[in-house]
Amino acid sequence: MQVARHHRTIITDVAPSVDGGQWPARRAAGETVSVMAGVIADGHNKLAVLIEVRPPAGEPTTQRLKLRWNDEYVGSFACPTPGRYRFRISAWVDEFATWQDEFRRRVEHHADAQEVTVELLTGAALVREAARRIAHPQALERFAEAMERCEASAALDEELSQLMRRHDRKRGATTSRWYVLEVDPPLAGFAAWYEFFPRSASAVPGRHGTLDDAADRLDRIRAMGFDVVYLPPVHPIGTTFRKGKDNSPAAAPGEPGSPWAIGSREGGHTAVHPELGGLAAFDRFVGRAKSLGLHVALDIAFQCSPDHPYVRKHPEWFQRRADGTIRYAENPPKKYQDVYPLDFTSEEAPSLWIELKRAFEFWIERGVRIFRVDNPHTKAFTFWEWCLGELRAKDPDLIFLAEAFTQPRTMYTLAKLGFNNSYTYFTWRNTKEELTSYMTELAHSDVAEYFRPNFWPNTPDILHEFLVQGGRPAHVIRFILAATLSATYGVYGPPFEHVDCRQHPEREEYANNEKYEVRHWNWHDEESLQPLFQRINQLRRAHPALQQLRSIRFFDVRNKHILGYCKVSGDSRIVCFVNLDPFHEQAADVVLPLDYLGLSGHEPFTVEDLLGGGSFTWQGVWQHIRLNPHVMPAAIYRV
Amino acid sequence: MQVARHHRTIITDVAPSVDGGQWPARRAAGETVSVMAGVIADGHNKLAVLIEVRPPAGEPTTQRLKLRWNDEYVGSFACPTPGRYRFRISAWVDEFATWQDEFRRRVEHHADAQEVTVELLTGAALVREAARRIAHPQALERFAEAMERCEASAALDEELSQLMRRHDRKRGATTSRWYVLEVDPPLAGFAAWYEFFPRSASAVPGRHGTLDDAADRLDRIRAMGFDVVYLPPVHPIGTTFRKGKDNSPAAAPGEPGSPWAIGSREGGHTAVHPELGGLAAFDRFVGRAKSLGLHVALDIAFQCSPDHPYVRKHPEWFQRRADGTIRYAENPPKKYQDVYPLDFTSEEAPSLWIELKRAFEFWIERGVRIFRVDNPHTKAFTFWEWCLGELRAKDPDLIFLAEAFTQPRTMYTLAKLGFNNSYTYFTWRNTKEELTSYMTELAHSDVAEYFRPNFWPNTPDILHEFLVQGGRPAHVIRFILAATLSATYGVYGPPFEHVDCRQHPEREEYANNEKYEVRHWNWHDEESLQPLFQRINQLRRAHPALQQLRSIRFFDVRNKHILGYCKVSGDSRIVCFVNLDPFHEQAADVVLPLDYLGLSGHEPFTVEDLLGGGSFTWQGVWQHIRLNPHVMPAAIYRV
Repeated sequence: MQVARHHRTIITDVAPSVDGGQWPARRAAGETVSVMAGVIADGHNKLAVLIEVRPPAGEPTTQRLKLRWNDEYVGSFACPTPGRYRFRISAWVDEFATWQDEFRRRVEHHADAQEVTVELLTGAALVREAARRIAHPQALERFAEAMERCEASAALDEELSQLMRRHDRKRGATTSRWYVLEVDPPLAGFAAWYEFFPRSASAVPGRHGTLDDAADRLDRIRAMGFDVVYLPPVHPIGTTFRKGKDNSPAAAPGEPGSPWAIGSREGGHTAVHPELGGLAAFDRFVGRAKSLGLHVALDIAFQCSPDHPYVRKHPEWFQRRADGTIRYAENPPKKYQDVYPLDFTSEEAPSLWIELKRAFEFWIERGVRIFRVDNPHTKAFTFWEWCLGELRAKDPDLIFLAEAFTQPRTMYTLAKLGFNNSYTYFTWRNTKEELTSYMTELAHSDVAEYFRPNFWPNTPDILHEFLVQGGRPAHVIRFILAATLSATYGVYGPPFEHVDCRQHPEREEYANNEKYEVRHWNWHDEESLQPLFQRINQLRRAHPALQQLRSIRFFDVRNKHILGYCKVSGDSRIVCFVNLDPFHEQAADVVLPLDYLGLSGHEPFTVEDLLGGGSFTWQGVWQHIRLNPHVMPAAIYRV
Repeated sequence: MQVARHHRTIITDVAPSVDGGQWPARRAAGETVSVMAGVIADGHNKLAVLIEVRPPAGEPTTQRLKLRWNDEYVGSFACPTPGRYRFRISAWVDEFATWQDEFRRRVEHHADAQEVTVELLTGAALVREAARRIAHPQALERFAEAMERCEASAALDEELSQLMRRHDRKRGATTSRWYVLEVDPPLAGFAAWYEFFPRSASAVPGRHGTLDDAADRLDRIRAMGFDVVYLPPVHPIGTTFRKGKDNSPAAAPGEPGSPWAIGSREGGHTAVHPELGGLAAFDRFVGRAKSLGLHVALDIAFQCSPDHPYVRKHPEWFQRRADGTIRYAENPPKKYQDVYPLDFTSEEAPSLWIELKRAFEFWIERGVRIFRVDNPHTKAFTFWEWCLGELRAKDPDLIFLAEAFTQPRTMYTLAKLGFNNSYTYFTWRNTKEELTSYMTELAHSDVAEYFRPNFWPNTPDILHEFLVQGGRPAHVIRFILAATLSATYGVYGPPFEHVDCRQHPEREEYANNEKYEVRHWNWHDEESLQPLFQRINQLRRAHPALQQLRSIRFFDVRNKHILGYCKVSGDSRIVCFVNLDPFHEQAADVVLPLDYLGLSGHEPFTVEDLLGGGSFTWQGVWQHIRLNPHVMPAAIYRV
């Protein structure tokens, strides 16, 4: 008989977990984690269900879970610090509690004296058995004696219950696997990102900006309420096959090239482009950001220009064609001759992996904790699992944003492998149906356990038609959606705030793209969206409901152009309406989810208009909303 | 570096599977199993995804899965015989197919001659590498030579593609775990059961029926179209604390007792009650059933009357109270003194387990393949997992119906442990909302992979108020629902077909319950529901759509009393409407799911009325239906 005969309990559906515990679930530090386990046993016994939690540092804790209903046992634990938590569930038949429960029912239903006597002796035998196993059995022995003297009240004494619970022999116990919970720094769960190109930061039009110029922009970015400044790659840019303006195949003399064509004789992934001011300027930039309470996110793009030092020193890290030349990036018939991909799976990969991890460590040592990783899905998955795991083991405060605009399974798998922020399809989800269905997947499916979306209305690579056509109202709509639907979001700032949405004639991206040329922005434009950015970021900070994703509920708005949703966190209750039509005023009757908001349908309640200002009183589920996109396409209410 | 660096593929979401492969999925013999695996790799490579299937006997087979969309690879395999199938998925980057795909695009987009040359040499190197690894490399070498001579057409030759596919070096291959698929006999997936008490089968009122009397009922049961005859326990019945009529605590002299109080001096679980005619009569009964194409299901209730031989021979298999007496079944304050539970988890359990398995084997040797297991949830789960596994390893044709009317997790877990039929909550699901939501759970959630419902409108233990109040129309409604919603169903026949629905004054069960007394039925009653049983069972046999569960779809019927659903299997398309109100005629506009039925909204289609007879022509999604419960509360159409 190979079956573990003594196991009487079966543990199922443990939450949080991902694919039955195959991958870690993800939370942010400071959260309280709700735990659930389905536990059954044969018969009608009382069960003991225990959770054992091992935090990344300090002592393990144990706690009993409580029966909620339908064999679901629930509890919670705090995860105050980032790092890798582990937990497992044990369950067994609580013999004495089962005996007590039956005994109580016998007494309540006036069992006859002989039955009570026999049962008290049966219970006393359980107590005696426990007493024999422990060092200080006196208390248990006193209870056993009382029960043997037929004192029914002794059998149900609270002290006895606790002693027997503590010294349960755990018959039929089953223990689950260890489940892993990756607890991220709070900023992984709630942050507003601002992206800009430092080389466009000069105060002087036409001049190549430096990281010192960029540092001069930080006060303004902080004033707008952002948490993270994200810089495209700051490394030396290759000259061989350098791209020109608007991605033309060859750069004219003096053109700066794409920051993603990394590496030149001045260095590679651990160097700073001389025109940006070199490493010293970078350190000053990080210092300035830190003093303002801003966090710096660096772009990590593991690819090389033909001029990258790796090409000379480690030709074995690249693929070769049959003519001996190094294979450049291509997706036939498209050629990207300014970029050599690295070969993550060759025989030489181990030294490459170690070198690339070192590149991360280099920037971590210089104070960077946040990395936006370019195209992780074109590099070996095993590399990321290894590299992010190693880095995080030393420094659990790290944030990695995956820039993988690819098919859903790959995006979700990268999150399982360790990316704790991800770009999303938000950029292309514009209609009410698209937004509702996508948000439901992100917030209410299994995905919510491990994939943390970072919503971007635009990037240097993506300028959606909706922004192009809809102009300023469309920008306001998309910004408010990003910042209120998702707890982490970002914006490629300068063109967005200035509503510069001229599109490249052939691509879904900006014309005069900063990827290929230095731009100059008016940092003092009175007409910019700066006040909107500031106000929305203020609201996000003030209202905990906007600092998380999973409580979102969409509700019934009788107009296909108006999206209505609410978020709840403790006492913080926020209701949003967004008119998705950037051209026309839209109005609708709406059915408020009063139950979910903790309100009764009968009593009036106060609603504070957080964008328009003022308060008013509502009553009942039916309300009416009217939104003019040329004034303000959204309404945000505190309820 | 502990990471398996060479693994480039990740396999996710394999279907069919249960809890990520922790438990077997379940199918019936003769089905074609659709398989799906999500597979991703870094980059934009062509992947090879292979399924390897190990049938219970014979050679393993392998097959490539095909990319459907979004990284989903699909295929199917047949499972013609019952038994335990295993399958696993392997996936790797198909280097040569990836190279060919890029090469094809280069040629299509007129790559220059030098590029084509270099790429042909690169491809030729892959071919040479394969040639070096195989015994008969000549064909590959010829292709390599042609490619080296710059013959582009050779590179895309179909023979080369196949050779390279066969001899792929499987770089970066990943292999999934083995997934288990329990393939049951067809009768587990599609069957109509008829339950009756043989002791009530005598042609002479007042006489205790025998199994020979019961055998005389089989022609009629077969004529009604049933597949399985299920008998309550046929073992000797205890006399100590024997229950009387209507479950009264003490039997009057001559009362027959409950067949579930098993065991007397005449024997236990491997004996037949003398008044039923003993083992010889049982064998004759099985033979008669077999000759008619009927299958016999026995009731297995692992509990003992105080008179059971086990009590004397194996007192160690029972629990004892402190006064030395054997503990009878109880749920305080209720006492079941006529029944001793067996102790499945004591130190003595191993010999008990072996003995109980022997009891199954005893009946299997006498030709029984189907067992209805009484209260499996009050016995150790590990016992069932072991016992059913051992029995099925010898005889994969077995069917075990779990009679566990308990909480959902326990019912579902028993299915995972090996019960391939289960009683359900159907008996208590009467409204449209209840039926729709329950059927959706059973047919369209994970549950459908392993839990096979057997729908019963009544049992000796359960007579629902709906049947009591609704009389004959309610019986017709519930019978048609059971037989058309579920592919396996059963009915506790005699009182149901005679619409004898007098309820016990205090319990949700029949008055004058056959559990405690011998009844006499008029087997020739012209008013019985026999013609309905016959007609519905005929339809089930004639229409494959009714022989499975998972294709069910409910559709929009604008009346809360009318349930509309359809099932599709190949060309077989059945649409059902059931008026759930046994008292009043109901009518409704309905929206037919024409797409799902493979029909266009523009063309008329023929509908055959399978209950009322005749055919007519419909067109469009909107139809109108009217059902009078006093005539026929349901309509079944072939479309």
